[in-house]
Amino acid sequence: MSISTQTLTLPDPLPLDGGGELAPVEIAYQTYGELDRDGSNAILLCHALTGDQHVASPHPVTGKPGWWERMVGPGRPIDTDRFHVICPNVIGSCMGSTGPASESPDGEPYAMRFPVITIRDMVRAHIGLLDALGIGRLHAVVGGSMGGMQALSLAANWPERTGHVLAIATTSRHSAQNIAFHELGRQAIMADPRWNQGDYYGGHSPDSGLAVARMAAHITYLSEEALTAKFGRNLQDREVKTFGFDADFQVESYLRYQGSGFTQRFDANSYLYITRAMDYFDLAEEHGGVLANAFRDTSARFCLVSFDSDWLYPTGESRHVVHALNAAGAPVSFVELGAPHGHDSFLLDIPALDRVVRGFLDG
Amino acid sequence: MSISTQTLTLPDPLPLDGGGELAPVEIAYQTYGELDRDGSNAILLCHALTGDQHVASPHPVTGKPGWWERMVGPGRPIDTDRFHVICPNVIGSCMGSTGPASESPDGEPYAMRFPVITIRDMVRAHIGLLDALGIGRLHAVVGGSMGGMQALSLAANWPERTGHVLAIATTSRHSAQNIAFHELGRQAIMADPRWNQGDYYGGHSPDSGLAVARMAAHITYLSEEALTAKFGRNLQDREVKTFGFDADFQVESYLRYQGSGFTQRFDANSYLYITRAMDYFDLAEEHGGVLANAFRDTSARFCLVSFDSDWLYPTGESRHVVHALNAAGAPVSFVELGAPHGHDSFLLDIPALDRVVRGFLDG
Repeated sequence: MSISTQTLTLPDPLPLDGGGELAPVEIAYQTYGELDRDGSNAILLCHALTGDQHVASPHPVTGKPGWWERMVGPGRPIDTDRFHVICPNVIGSCMGSTGPASESPDGEPYAMRFPVITIRDMVRAHIGLLDALGIGRLHAVVGGSMGGMQALSLAANWPERTGHVLAIATTSRHSAQNIAFHELGRQAIMADPRWNQGDYYGGHSPDSGLAVARMAAHITYLSEEALTAKFGRNLQDREVKTFGFDADFQVESYLRYQGSGFTQRFDANSYLYITRAMDYFDLAEEHGGVLANAFRDTSARFCLVSFDSDWLYPTGESRHVVHALNAAGAPVSFVELGAPHGHDSFLLDIPALDRVVRGFLDG
Repeated sequence: MSISTQTLTLPDPLPLDGGGELAPVEIAYQTYGELDRDGSNAILLCHALTGDQHVASPHPVTGKPGWWERMVGPGRPIDTDRFHVICPNVIGSCMGSTGPASESPDGEPYAMRFPVITIRDMVRAHIGLLDALGIGRLHAVVGGSMGGMQALSLAANWPERTGHVLAIATTSRHSAQNIAFHELGRQAIMADPRWNQGDYYGGHSPDSGLAVARMAAHITYLSEEALTAKFGRNLQDREVKTFGFDADFQVESYLRYQGSGFTQRFDANSYLYITRAMDYFDLAEEHGGVLANAFRDTSARFCLVSFDSDWLYPTGESRHVVHALNAAGAPVSFVELGAPHGHDSFLLDIPALDRVVRGFLDG
């Protein structure tokens, strides 16, 4: 498949929901597959909180496979023999798009001078990218988790720009519990003295705090059932408890590994900004408090997918969106899939998800 | 009611599950109500992770009411006009019983030289206290959460010492998810440079890390429903989002308050040791891998109570204990109460719980 990594500078300053504008805005993005002659086969793929543009090709830092290789590629459910897939790194992130670690106009990194952004700001930047690429109307916008928020935001705010909207394991608003877990992560980062009010570029980054934040988030990505099946109370490389504070249990070892591995590839300030954007997300609030109003102007077809073991964005959140789409008269299909893995199911080997994705994009 | 605060030094060294022994062992405890002449009306009340002996009288540090004032007192469900209630501070804690902040035999605080203890070690210390007080057989042992673990451990390991066992919102073993949340808290504490490998007594304590640990735990104590009902997406003392990192949402403000308030009254090393004891808790493992074996020698009556919104120790955990008690032929009653508050329900105003407690202790 044709794979291309590029960075584009938006020609215009980006207006922000919080007021003011961001300029310059660079967007790092990856494309897979060829754009057809009439430009009608483009799919915008939106990544999750800690995701990036490396969907179906190795991650440049970790060398690991792309985060959705099983879904995106030749003959895969998002078939790059048929579709031109564009995956941009969201603004605020740290994989090439403009974010807190980027150089600000004064030559220093933004750090905490970076503006607080919203999910809609991220999508506004995506629209700027599509404009620059000459792509008018997408075949589809697709995303899971925070990617699903972007997909819904695009459908609500730029309804003419897509024919299909596929939103997986997501929500139209962050709940109090969602905000609580994110706030916990932010406080862990800010409690790390190395965070230094965000000014750590060129020095030691607040890896300890970021690792704790990642551990907290990771617990929410897995179901209790999945943790029990995967680890239970099994001990890690030992026969008996050590009566100490090493990682006696496999689940402890796993979490420590997840936490420390994450710090190699992610910027702590980006974690603050992106979690904030997610917590601010409330699609109904943006549309007069009535979620159905967000979808009044859409002509797209929608597909919502949830997982029965996802306690981060439980099925009720998807159903809430479906009811709003029904009220707006938009065509929508909805399926709750059985999968034991929790929220992370959307990234894992769930054949039923493959069938739903392939079928919906063909429709 | 007669209230008495005392500290007792156990006459003998305390053997520990991890090997070795602890000496001297001081137990700070509180009693409410009079012991009757034949010593048959004593109730041992076991506190939870961050609880203490101040059940029904003001906390000496915070000045707040005792943690179970609504349950314990004259005419209350645990009626101090009838019962002599003894509530000891667990070893490893920080309210007067021997723990990591205590002076070790060399005159310095134990800090991380304190031995890793188990729930059974805590109960062994309670038994030492009862022996010293001349109380042979309790009318009942009662506890919620970690207090319930102690109640079950006492019934399993000192079956002749109690006639009734009331275990509320608890479990016979910590699950992978339970361990994960505790490990997250421990890592938050240990990531705080002020923790300094546990040697912070006399200097600055690791309040930032401990506050993050408390925030994580606090989220698990409340149901998603309770968080939504209490806070939803309400903003804190403002009309609009600030597009900054202050506590915009009420739930953020609440968690920060819970975290920082906790550091005033709790020792970070105690948090490490007590969470470790809970994670190590597996009553079946102590008895050949068969939970029913833990209860073969008991002649006590049992009552298990769970709450339908408790996702920390869900009803299935109580049911698991009930099945083991059934298999052991022990008399047991079990009720799952409807309450929206999550795990913390056992501390809150649930009239049905009052009725269950009163009725069971009268039986």
